[in-house]
Amino acid sequence: MTASLPTATSEWPLTNDLAAVRRAIRQGRWTGHTSGVAQDHVQGNVVILPEQQANDFLRYCQRNPKPCPVLAVSEPGEPMLPTLGADINICTDVPQYRVWRDGELAQECADISELWRDDLVTFVIGCSFSFEQALIEAGLSLRHIDQGRNVAMYRSNMPTLAAGPFEGPMVVSMRPLRAADAIRAVQVTSRFPQVHGAPVHMGDPALIGISDLSKPDYGDAVEVMPDELPVFWACGVTPQAAIRQARPAFCITHAPGAMLITDLFNSQLASF
Amino acid sequence: MTASLPTATSEWPLTNDLAAVRRAIRQGRWTGHTSGVAQDHVQGNVVILPEQQANDFLRYCQRNPKPCPVLAVSEPGEPMLPTLGADINICTDVPQYRVWRDGELAQECADISELWRDDLVTFVIGCSFSFEQALIEAGLSLRHIDQGRNVAMYRSNMPTLAAGPFEGPMVVSMRPLRAADAIRAVQVTSRFPQVHGAPVHMGDPALIGISDLSKPDYGDAVEVMPDELPVFWACGVTPQAAIRQARPAFCITHAPGAMLITDLFNSQLASF
Repeated sequence: MTASLPTATSEWPLTNDLAAVRRAIRQGRWTGHTSGVAQDHVQGNVVILPEQQANDFLRYCQRNPKPCPVLAVSEPGEPMLPTLGADINICTDVPQYRVWRDGELAQECADISELWRDDLVTFVIGCSFSFEQALIEAGLSLRHIDQGRNVAMYRSNMPTLAAGPFEGPMVVSMRPLRAADAIRAVQVTSRFPQVHGAPVHMGDPALIGISDLSKPDYGDAVEVMPDELPVFWACGVTPQAAIRQARPAFCITHAPGAMLITDLFNSQLASF
Repeated sequence: MTASLPTATSEWPLTNDLAAVRRAIRQGRWTGHTSGVAQDHVQGNVVILPEQQANDFLRYCQRNPKPCPVLAVSEPGEPMLPTLGADINICTDVPQYRVWRDGELAQECADISELWRDDLVTFVIGCSFSFEQALIEAGLSLRHIDQGRNVAMYRSNMPTLAAGPFEGPMVVSMRPLRAADAIRAVQVTSRFPQVHGAPVHMGDPALIGISDLSKPDYGDAVEVMPDELPVFWACGVTPQAAIRQARPAFCITHAPGAMLITDLFNSQLASF
């Protein structure tokens, strides 16, 4: 399943004005990916589940902290996420949602106010976009950002640890880097354990069950040059693979690449 | 030039008894490599130059801190190195020396007392053996240690920055690791900037001018398995390449792999 989201246009430059970005998303004027958007701010993957499944899912995240680092869990039925920002409303502030019924994608939409229920619990899970700013500030070029694309994501053959009905392969994001930059990227991203931390693999994609880098399972493909290594990080889309496995009766997630943008600054997450 | 030093025998088990190790080296009973020997202790590459060239060489090290991190510089004519250990005598405490005249290897010996001069300055430069202990403690296997061999070292095509007559290619040591271990090795060795720190390259050896991993320029070859990346660190043998270039009238170094073992503990060098 390749999600081809709209890309940034001249009307929607990559901006660091959080208020403007949130307003545009809330009003449904931006339903695309958020890679490189408001890049000072922590972005998050979103999973919304009925309370019954939420407890299993929290245990799943705890057991798989590399792909599923939990930044926030809401109170049941509460759409606001005060620990992530003063006015964040999970019903409106994600550019594009996916609604899942019985584990199948049922609907994509830009607002879930009509679907909200008193028993829903929101999970916000750290996203690699948060460490991309640190990589760029370290002097590295990230091809998908330079090309205005969503990052390439793949279902690997690395299993996650199961909890209740939740299990499945680890989804990974990939950024091509020359070796010296890949080494630097390990150093930089190791400082950010809450947003996937260090890479989980680099080099031969076949070793983690990826047969063709030009065909990502989510996001957009980017070229890997002959002098580059593909570098793979655990990805917050992993829960979506687990949800397809668990087949909960009802679930809402973000669309891959179209993240919740929080008030937190990425620099706040650096561990040293 | 492949240095094939004697390897550890049953009479010379890999031991952490520093006093026994130093005694054996001082008495000429151990003239082999020191990889995995007294592994709690900081080991150092050795360069001994007349005062005239020593000033250029110190500048060379300052400009190339990855291959040439200076742990100690002696007073001219002073064979003792009190900052590295109470009784270290540079004339006797290296297992095997190389004596260079006009840039050419003139002699190998286990004691340089007869060659000592009042104008000689000793440089001790950090060695990757120091971080190998930290890698092993992190759960990684290092093939050359498992096989009782010296580490494989190669002249790369990465240039160093010149100072006076000293210049030349960066020499690198190579350890084959699976990707997850290579990533962990970047994290672990980044904590040890005084002993070469993080790797300088991983993956395709041709990208740094190494055409055949089975033919190291120094040390012993080890096999790289299909699921492994060769991981390259800057190496303290780099000065020996610069000395061949500078052709000083007189110079003494350690033989590659046969290091000075100091009183310092590797754990003292960890930066955080």
